[in-house]
Amino acid sequence: MQGHIVSSFEEALDRINESLARMGGLAERQLADSIDAITRRDRTLAEQTIASDKQIDELEVDIEAQALRLIALRQPMAIDLRETISAIKISSDLERIGDLAKNIAKRAQAVDQASPGRAMQGLGRMGRQVLTQLKEVLDAYAQRDHERAMVVWRRDEEIDEMYNSLFRELLTYMMEDPRTISLCTHLLFVAKNLERIGDHSTNIAETIQFLVKGENIGQNRPKGDTTSVTTLEYPKDMPSKDAGTAE
Amino acid sequence: MQGHIVSSFEEALDRINESLARMGGLAERQLADSIDAITRRDRTLAEQTIASDKQIDELEVDIEAQALRLIALRQPMAIDLRETISAIKISSDLERIGDLAKNIAKRAQAVDQASPGRAMQGLGRMGRQVLTQLKEVLDAYAQRDHERAMVVWRRDEEIDEMYNSLFRELLTYMMEDPRTISLCTHLLFVAKNLERIGDHSTNIAETIQFLVKGENIGQNRPKGDTTSVTTLEYPKDMPSKDAGTAE
Repeated sequence: MQGHIVSSFEEALDRINESLARMGGLAERQLADSIDAITRRDRTLAEQTIASDKQIDELEVDIEAQALRLIALRQPMAIDLRETISAIKISSDLERIGDLAKNIAKRAQAVDQASPGRAMQGLGRMGRQVLTQLKEVLDAYAQRDHERAMVVWRRDEEIDEMYNSLFRELLTYMMEDPRTISLCTHLLFVAKNLERIGDHSTNIAETIQFLVKGENIGQNRPKGDTTSVTTLEYPKDMPSKDAGTAE
Repeated sequence: MQGHIVSSFEEALDRINESLARMGGLAERQLADSIDAITRRDRTLAEQTIASDKQIDELEVDIEAQALRLIALRQPMAIDLRETISAIKISSDLERIGDLAKNIAKRAQAVDQASPGRAMQGLGRMGRQVLTQLKEVLDAYAQRDHERAMVVWRRDEEIDEMYNSLFRELLTYMMEDPRTISLCTHLLFVAKNLERIGDHSTNIAETIQFLVKGENIGQNRPKGDTTSVTTLEYPKDMPSKDAGTAE
C-alpha cells in the first residue's frame, strides 16, 4: 500500500467503500455476537466481542482520514461530494453500533443469575429484528437503493414497540421479585442499546436518501419509544413471593 | 437574508459559526432546564424544554446544509476545510445533547413520586458538573483553545465516577423499597443520559484538537464508566421495610 499513488477519484472512493463494507460486516457480526452472548450467557463470546470492537474503531478513524484527504485533494462536487460525506456519516453510525454492541457484551459478563425466561426471549426477538434492520440498510447502501432504505426507516417503529413492551415486562419482574433488580437493570440497558442501534440504522437510511436524492428528509420520523413517560404503579397487594427464578 | 450573495469564504464561515454559537447556547440552556425540571419535578419547565428541542434540530440541518454548500462551492483546504468539517461534527454532537436533554425532561414529567432525596441530590450534582463541562468545551471552541479542550476531555472521568456511584445508589434504593422501582429506573436513565452528554462534550473536545492541531487523538480516552459490569447482590436478610420515602 505504501507509496501507492491513487490515480483517480473513483479509485480512492472505491477504497473508502471497501473499508466501509468491511466495517459494516464487522458491525453486523459484533451485534449478532453480542446478542448471542447475552441470551446464552456466553462469557467467552462476550470477551471476544468486547475485544473485536477495536477493529471497528480503527476503521472509522481510517475512513474519516481517507475521506477528508479525498475532499481536500480532489475537491469533489455534487454526487461525488455526497458519496464522500456519506461515507464519513455512515462510518460514524457504525462506530456507535459497535460501541453499543460492546456494551451489551459487557453486560453479558455481568449477568450471572438465571434470568426471567420470557424477558430473555423478548430480548432475543428484539435483537434479531434490530440485526435484520441493520443488514437491510447496509444492503440498501451497497445498492444505493433509497426506497429499500426508506422501508428500514419506517420499520423502526416496530423496534420501538418491542422496546416498550420489554421495558414494562422487566419493570414488572423487578417488582414481583426484587432479587432480580440488578439483573433486570442490565437487561433494561441492553434493550435500550438495541433500540439505539435501531436508531442508527435509521440514520444510515437517512444518509442513503441524502446520497441518492440529494435531499435531507429531516426530523419527522415517527417515534414509537414511549418508555420515558412510562410509569408502572407498584401493586398495593403484591404477594410477598418466594419466587423461584433461580435455576 | 434572501438573495444575499456571500462574497467570501470567511463571510460564509462566519455565518456558520454564528449558527453554531446560537446552537451551543440553546443546548446549554436545554440541559440546564432539563436538570432543573427533573430535580424540582417542574412539569411546566419540562414541557417547555421538550418543545424547544425543535430549534436545535433545525439548526443542525441548517448548519450541515450551509457547510456542505460551502465545501461544494468554495472547495476549502487545510484549516478552512477543517473549520467546515468541524462545524458539521460539533453540530451533530449538540443535536444529540439536545435530544438527551429532551429525554431527561420527558422523564421529569413521568416522575410523580417523591424521590429518595440523596439520589436526587447526586443527580443534581452530576448534572451541574456535566453542564460545566459543556460550557467549558464550548468556550474552548469559541477561542479555538485546544489545551482548554483537553482539560475537559480529561475531566470526563469524574463524571463517569459520579455515574458509577449514582448507579449503585439507585439500585440499592430499589432493593430496599421496591415501590421506588419505576421511579428509580427513570432516574437511572437520566443519569445515563447525563453520562452520554459528558461523552459528547469529549467528542467536541476531540474535534477542537483536530481543528487546531490537524490531528486525531483517537480512541484512547480513559473510560471510567464501570456500571455495565456492576452487580449488586440482593441482601439475604433484607428487612421488610415500611419505608417512609413518600413526602
